Amino acid sequence: MASRTATELVHPDRTRLRFTAVLAALSDPVRLAIVARLADVEPDGELACTTFALPVSKSTQSGHFKVLREAGVIHQRDEGTRRLNQLRRDALDTRFPGLLDLAIPQGHEVLAGW
Amino acid sequence: MASRTATELVHPDRTRLRFTAVLAALSDPVRLAIVARLADVEPDGELACTTFALPVSKSTQSGHFKVLREAGVIHQRDEGTRRLNQLRRDALDTRFPGLLDLAIPQGHEVLAGW
Repeated sequence: MASRTATELVHPDRTRLRFTAVLAALSDPVRLAIVARLADVEPDGELACTTFALPVSKSTQSGHFKVLREAGVIHQRDEGTRRLNQLRRDALDTRFPGLLDLAIPQGHEVLAGW
Repeated sequence: MASRTATELVHPDRTRLRFTAVLAALSDPVRLAIVARLADVEPDGELACTTFALPVSKSTQSGHFKVLREAGVIHQRDEGTRRLNQLRRDALDTRFPGLLDLAIPQGHEVLAGW
């Protein structure tokens, strides 16, 4: 069965989030913008990848989402043909308190500049 | 005059620190260890590059210090043949409150593992 949902989406457990990986994930303006958009739909909101309208190619965009997921910043799940994204607020706030609160305004600044 | 002190050490003004550059600088275990060592000698302490005994080559070490300086995380100055390093605590706490307080314990964990 070669459907989109066959892709396994790996997420690190919240106890295994690495500070260096999370910082690296947040050290890019496009990824900060993604985080800020997801913060706008908290706590339960999910946004499909296709709704972000980022100023990068589709494959570059996919790479950014992957970096965020593998670092533990976002949760992704497939629903039909859509890939839905959600900020892992609880995990991040527990492990690295205050970090998201620094990152989100930075992402909003990026969005405002586009 | 080809002395060591002829090298110009560029430091970003505190108003121009970029979040993405600071996060990238702090997203490496060796650089986190340097930050933690400098935090141990705050507020006025400076440590010479040669005192860090990092488990990397001398040129790699120099590169790490340069990344930290150019991002605005540390201040460097030359004194004779020594290059002295100091954490830019005030600038970082003003621009990105809480970030250093997250990073320093991470650096101490790195040091404990060496």
